[in-house]
Amino acid sequence: MSWKPNRSSHLTMQEQIIDWVKSRIDKGEWTVGTKLPPQRSLASQFNVNRSTVQLALDELKASGLLHTRAGSGVFVANNSWNILLNNNQPNWHRHIESGIHKPNYHTIQLINEYEQQEGIIRLGTGELSPDLLPTEQIKDSLSEIQLESRAIGYSSPLGNEKLRNVLCTYLKKRDIHTEPDNILIVSGALQALQLISFGLLEQGSVVFQEEPSYLNSIHPFQSSGMRVTSITKELKLKEILKEQKRNRQSLYYAVPTLHNPTGRNWTLEEKERLYDVCKELQIPIIEDDVYHELLFEETYPAMKSFDTSGQVLYLGSVSKTLSPGLRIGWVVAPTPVIHHLADIKMQTDYGSSAFSQEIVAHWISSGMYEEHVSKLRARLKERAAFTEAILEEQFKDTATWEKSEGGFYIWLRFNEPVVNKALFLNLINRKVLINPGYIYMPSDLHHIRLSYAYASLKDLKEALGILKELIS
Amino acid sequence: MSWKPNRSSHLTMQEQIIDWVKSRIDKGEWTVGTKLPPQRSLASQFNVNRSTVQLALDELKASGLLHTRAGSGVFVANNSWNILLNNNQPNWHRHIESGIHKPNYHTIQLINEYEQQEGIIRLGTGELSPDLLPTEQIKDSLSEIQLESRAIGYSSPLGNEKLRNVLCTYLKKRDIHTEPDNILIVSGALQALQLISFGLLEQGSVVFQEEPSYLNSIHPFQSSGMRVTSITKELKLKEILKEQKRNRQSLYYAVPTLHNPTGRNWTLEEKERLYDVCKELQIPIIEDDVYHELLFEETYPAMKSFDTSGQVLYLGSVSKTLSPGLRIGWVVAPTPVIHHLADIKMQTDYGSSAFSQEIVAHWISSGMYEEHVSKLRARLKERAAFTEAILEEQFKDTATWEKSEGGFYIWLRFNEPVVNKALFLNLINRKVLINPGYIYMPSDLHHIRLSYAYASLKDLKEALGILKELIS
Ligand SMILES: Cc1ncc(COP(=O)(O)O)c(C=O)c1O
Ligand SMILES: Cc1ncc(COP(=O)(O)O)c(C=O)c1O
Repeated sequence: MSWKPNRSSHLTMQEQIIDWVKSRIDKGEWTVGTKLPPQRSLASQFNVNRSTVQLALDELKASGLLHTRAGSGVFVANNSWNILLNNNQPNWHRHIESGIHKPNYHTIQLINEYEQQEGIIRLGTGELSPDLLPTEQIKDSLSEIQLESRAIGYSSPLGNEKLRNVLCTYLKKRDIHTEPDNILIVSGALQALQLISFGLLEQGSVVFQEEPSYLNSIHPFQSSGMRVTSITKELKLKEILKEQKRNRQSLYYAVPTLHNPTGRNWTLEEKERLYDVCKELQIPIIEDDVYHELLFEETYPAMKSFDTSGQVLYLGSVSKTLSPGLRIGWVVAPTPVIHHLADIKMQTDYGSSAFSQEIVAHWISSGMYEEHVSKLRARLKERAAFTEAILEEQFKDTATWEKSEGGFYIWLRFNEPVVNKALFLNLINRKVLINPGYIYMPSDLHHIRLSYAYASLKDLKEALGILKELIS
Repeated sequence: MSWKPNRSSHLTMQEQIIDWVKSRIDKGEWTVGTKLPPQRSLASQFNVNRSTVQLALDELKASGLLHTRAGSGVFVANNSWNILLNNNQPNWHRHIESGIHKPNYHTIQLINEYEQQEGIIRLGTGELSPDLLPTEQIKDSLSEIQLESRAIGYSSPLGNEKLRNVLCTYLKKRDIHTEPDNILIVSGALQALQLISFGLLEQGSVVFQEEPSYLNSIHPFQSSGMRVTSITKELKLKEILKEQKRNRQSLYYAVPTLHNPTGRNWTLEEKERLYDVCKELQIPIIEDDVYHELLFEETYPAMKSFDTSGQVLYLGSVSKTLSPGLRIGWVVAPTPVIHHLADIKMQTDYGSSAFSQEIVAHWISSGMYEEHVSKLRARLKERAAFTEAILEEQFKDTATWEKSEGGFYIWLRFNEPVVNKALFLNLINRKVLINPGYIYMPSDLHHIRLSYAYASLKDLKEALGILKELIS
């Protein structure tokens, strides 16, 4: 368990805290430059008053072990005592700075961090709220899982065979007719992007995306040295793609159904046109279809359903429908591509959790999955309507939006360019966390990606009130 | 479900198979150059005689759709019909060839492939045999897992908090005193290597390893452009490391306890010397400690236990002890390093399976884990003794080996350089799969990594008999 001062020690709380901080520096766990957790978190970890923590830190600062950087927190100081103690520490800072994979944008790191905090209202989270997750049913279903010893060993390269078979049947409903050896099980759709990035592109390849794009909020392509280029689906699509691609390798990343962050659906013509152009230019397409089960009305055909040339790499996942904690997704692609991606996956993590795979196979094959998703759609629809009513009441004069067709998001556009980092930070101060548009399109200061899927209705209402207040 | 011909169709089996193959080519699932599965597998998938498959394939060859490459199988032909059909297929071959992440060595791909086949005896597999896995107990324990809705959502960057707390207590027994924010949960130790490779090294960095090394059988460092250099732990260690490193970034990868593939344990002096030298040269050390629970006798202190400078990145895993299908491992390192690796993990797969994490937390905290591991050690010890007795009887004149001190492996050394790819392939023909030494040390033609952990005792005996026969 996390360390706590001992109330029956002969040392005071404050002395014990000082010793503990010293020992962490001493052991090299907190290296020079490490930022300490906020006093608030330390106080709650130690189960003491904030003032006790403050006094301990003050003493450590006085002795030169820690120092405050105005506005950004308390850090392990680069003083002679620390250096003496940890002489010849590896230069972790240099290691971190020079790593190939770049850190997330600061705003996204803050989002990841604050999402963990109690008491904050998450107005942008792309995730089902705890009460929409079928937690109890999943728990009950665990007893029905058939675990075989072979299944809990290292996985076969393509993933659990039962699950791949089940998916073949399931995908038929989306009019995708495929075979188990055209399916690779991955640890979520995000991992598929990572594998495609490392496995199918050389450095300097061009990755086309829509604008705004989910890809801007993650870095699978950027981190492996690809050039990511935003394309608007306009009339001269072919000329533009051709010119940008030249003779480089390339790939088009699309979320044609319930797009993240805009919630938009492409028309069938848009899909056909992209498919035809990419086919002519030999540009493979990633069709990221993780939200399609959440369409409120009729479903739109997937590009993969009319792909006759093995052009489309199709991605699915249970993260948006059943549980992101399962970390299960899939790629459908031509056999040689699947085998190559599987080979790389084996080198990366030796396959996905066998337990998660068994759970998903059981849920889909038993029909529980579709039954759950159909109820889920109804509840999301209610949440969308609730949120739209608030918007109508409170934001009609300052913003515009489209009625949601499904999924989680409303792409709220403010008339004025008010959605900047200051707004983001001010909202955090008021315990509201948003996903600002600029993480999906760097130049954008107009949009917020509202999610009606995560916060409780009460919280949604309250947070939108705070948002309105700060905007005006 | 996988496609099968329909026995009540008006078409013959053979005609249906032909149509099916055509449709797979037609849809672009089997692109030009795709290798078809062996006739044997097709026959068993279709539930028909091999001769039916043969006739169907012959007809497809006659029409120019398929062609045979002598000795390597049947492929989708690059003929005009296919090209016409799939006109403008993406050049997947070029994509695969030029990807950044390189394919596994051919021998390792074959091992991954043949491990999935029924009826083959796996003499080298680094994995617990199905009867050593506590499958039933894990299944029973599922009902005791406390699933909370928060826990099955997207994970916090460092991983399940309960599990990190449990690990702090668990690691104390290994004399490693740490805190939850110095621990990152990963999808197996292999993923940790991948994250370290992308997160903490620049291209062209030097990764030192022992010779032979597990690292040669996987490519996490090579694929991201690191120079991997084998080092023998000789007297001039410091001079050699210094010279090879120059002013490049570097890292030392070590498996000091029950080394893979040799099974060796470093002495305390060897560990201290490496630690001191690396500290002086500021070379971080990866201490891969995934086998330590399987030491038959007393345990040797981990380097991490005397690390006072945050020099050592310590790796653990439940793959070798509880179940590799869980895909759960951990890294212990200084806080800034952990936070950086966690950030990259979030960009890679948004965290490890929440279910797997809950299962491991439950097993370790309840004491079931240690109880199981202690029984497991006893059973592995029996298996080691059984295998050593066969070696003594059959290989005394042709090979040497050391008595196993724990884990899975015996590093069997033949007096003559007989362990080449031909032997590997000949053994496959006899339904025996080995891990030849050359996948751990390319120039080595003397060794086999025997594993007494996977095959049944009967199979072990039989396969060793076949090995002896082929060697002489
Ligand atoms: C469009 C899109 N693709 C992929 C993902 C990642 O999904 P997974 O949890 O399956 O990795 C998300 C989740 O945010 C998403 O919005
Ligand atoms: C030394 C060593 N490290 C790491 C691993 C990978 O373990 P995991 O299944 O935890 O990724 C293995 C497994 O073969 C191993 O032998």
